[in-house]
Amino acid sequence: MAIPTGLSEHVDERRLWSRHIALAEFGATAAGGVNRQALSSEDIAARRLLIDMARSLELQPSSDAIANLFLRYEGTDPRAAPVLTGSHIDSQPTGGKFDGTFGVLAGIEAVEAMQAAGFRPRRPIEIVAWTNEEGSRFAPGMMGSALFRGKRELEEVLAVADGDGVSVAQGVEQVRAAEPDIPSRPIGSPLAAYIEAHIEQGPILEMESKVVGIVTGIQGKRVFRITVTGEENHAGTTPRSHRLDALYATTNMMHALYAEMHDVQDIVKFTVGKLEVWPNAPSVVPAQTHFSIDLRHPDASTLTRLGDRIAPICDASKGACDVHVRELSHDPPLEFPGALRDVVRESAERLGIACMELPSAAGHDARHLHYVCPTGMIFVPCAGGVSHRETESCTASDLYAGTRVLTETLARLAV
Amino acid sequence: MAIPTGLSEHVDERRLWSRHIALAEFGATAAGGVNRQALSSEDIAARRLLIDMARSLELQPSSDAIANLFLRYEGTDPRAAPVLTGSHIDSQPTGGKFDGTFGVLAGIEAVEAMQAAGFRPRRPIEIVAWTNEEGSRFAPGMMGSALFRGKRELEEVLAVADGDGVSVAQGVEQVRAAEPDIPSRPIGSPLAAYIEAHIEQGPILEMESKVVGIVTGIQGKRVFRITVTGEENHAGTTPRSHRLDALYATTNMMHALYAEMHDVQDIVKFTVGKLEVWPNAPSVVPAQTHFSIDLRHPDASTLTRLGDRIAPICDASKGACDVHVRELSHDPPLEFPGALRDVVRESAERLGIACMELPSAAGHDARHLHYVCPTGMIFVPCAGGVSHRETESCTASDLYAGTRVLTETLARLAV
Repeated sequence: MAIPTGLSEHVDERRLWSRHIALAEFGATAAGGVNRQALSSEDIAARRLLIDMARSLELQPSSDAIANLFLRYEGTDPRAAPVLTGSHIDSQPTGGKFDGTFGVLAGIEAVEAMQAAGFRPRRPIEIVAWTNEEGSRFAPGMMGSALFRGKRELEEVLAVADGDGVSVAQGVEQVRAAEPDIPSRPIGSPLAAYIEAHIEQGPILEMESKVVGIVTGIQGKRVFRITVTGEENHAGTTPRSHRLDALYATTNMMHALYAEMHDVQDIVKFTVGKLEVWPNAPSVVPAQTHFSIDLRHPDASTLTRLGDRIAPICDASKGACDVHVRELSHDPPLEFPGALRDVVRESAERLGIACMELPSAAGHDARHLHYVCPTGMIFVPCAGGVSHRETESCTASDLYAGTRVLTETLARLAV
Repeated sequence: MAIPTGLSEHVDERRLWSRHIALAEFGATAAGGVNRQALSSEDIAARRLLIDMARSLELQPSSDAIANLFLRYEGTDPRAAPVLTGSHIDSQPTGGKFDGTFGVLAGIEAVEAMQAAGFRPRRPIEIVAWTNEEGSRFAPGMMGSALFRGKRELEEVLAVADGDGVSVAQGVEQVRAAEPDIPSRPIGSPLAAYIEAHIEQGPILEMESKVVGIVTGIQGKRVFRITVTGEENHAGTTPRSHRLDALYATTNMMHALYAEMHDVQDIVKFTVGKLEVWPNAPSVVPAQTHFSIDLRHPDASTLTRLGDRIAPICDASKGACDVHVRELSHDPPLEFPGALRDVVRESAERLGIACMELPSAAGHDARHLHYVCPTGMIFVPCAGGVSHRETESCTASDLYAGTRVLTETLARLAV
């Protein structure tokens, strides 16, 4: 079937916007943001809204053993490998309305536009909501796409627990119990292509006055979890020389790490985002800490070199405490194939939408899909480049423009 | 009435020990310790046990507006100012069975011994369980005794909230609702003397093979709460130069503070026991931290000088973040009066119990009572000097010996 002229004019800007607002109700925070942790009751309620939308469009829902949710628009050749689009709907604890959500709702909107235009492509189109992209409840993130890619083992992932001791397995079980109407599917499947729409989460499109970004690739990322163990003692009676103060050792480690990672060119991204102290009482010498390291760099060898410095630096600063450095993930930088970037660029140019190529500083599920099939990403601007904050903000017209480019791109990949 | 010879032989070692074990059931931890937060349901249940003991001894219970619990053994002259003894029954999150509890149970045991000996002193003897000595749920600690002394305002104290936003007022209300049978009393009252029995929480008595310590005084203590405010941002996309990383600033502050407070003589006690990070997610640049400082020194001018360095050091290390340093309390070092120490020493020597004078490195409610009436403390050893830990341990015979000294001391103060 030929792609109808004016296909993407069937994208409905108001409907797309109102769906973002509706989805943001699940986990809404007082400050206007979203706290929708993976596999939580808020997540389950938001998934139900997606499933209801899919049903009304006669899309076939299914989910796999990690609760990745797929909504399938059947192609004229049901045996052809599908084109996959989507993103995630979990959020940071103080996240916004658009991070992830946009990619899922844009995918649904694209299919609805195709239906309105009377267009059914040869290949099926599937929209996916990946489980636990953010990694804030269960670390590390991109859990659903990592499993889909075969990078991690299901059993190992299901055993991961949140801060309250609840496991991923228990979370998945709750999701499945709430969705008895959704058929199961195996993890992973052949794909013709994957294309993910997302907000930029950086300032470049806004600074360059562009509406759509053609993503060239994703910088590399290593994630670590460090545990420092000392001994709890009375803060008033224990002399310094008798202390095994885990927070003192942690401070020395972090201070040395910040110094080591300091980069005058400001390309290295080094973040300790999470630090927990135990027993965390004002008059008790801390016995244990856990802290996270998020290290990113666009150059593979620099990322390897810097990441490999972490354990020796922690060891050198531990004093009389014990330290255990565990690497949770190591994702090298990657470059998306030119052929897919060309399809996105041509779609944008055909619609007269101002676009540019740019790299992604943030990680995305597309990172894992890159190793499964030809993969690309479409960015839209967010105000001030602000994301992972409750004030994250996008305009309806930018979401509309990005979704139009996604619709044309999907049609060309699936035809 | 003359003090009977052999009065303290009526102290019952087994009964005293079994009451410690019974009280430790309330908030018992898996590791054999106690987590009994002030004004919690565990605290309420433990108070009920004390009230039941008091009733069976015909002591009159009462409590004040901060829920300090008093158990009164009437004297032959009910109008005479009472002698007060006791301590606290709240604990650290990973506390032991004896810290605080010993002082309260020793007081009850002393009165029971007097009754068994048929001895009623001229002055009433009151046993007190002070509210929130530890300060781990509601900071700072010694809340009940500070109010009794008139050092703090009731309204200000009632407004203090725990980490879940529950206020002291709400906690007190729950206690009072659970104790409708306990008459109210005003905060504060004239006292003839205060004597507090406590475990040493340090290694000196054990090292010196002494069973009872006559406490000479308490080192000074200043408590601070510091808030560092930056801006949350995406860990992958935000360049270092654009970050307001509250944890980075906090690390610099703490590193500089540890260096400043380093004392080769090892007399300064400087502890950051509590540190909280917000939003505390691995891939979000931290927007805010709160941390505690517990600073102690036996010399008043050194304590003042070092504590006054904290705000300037934090300010110098804040970078582009904001910092707010709030001092929660400043208690100068103090020395207990010699007359009271003499009564304790004579009681111990009369019983042939090995004793010595020593200072208290830990703070106690006696700190505040020192400014109300002649005050003293009796220490007993704890294994390895370990306290504020679940492994805190004492022997039944040391508790017995300390309680005998307390009994003789109370009798002499109340006669």
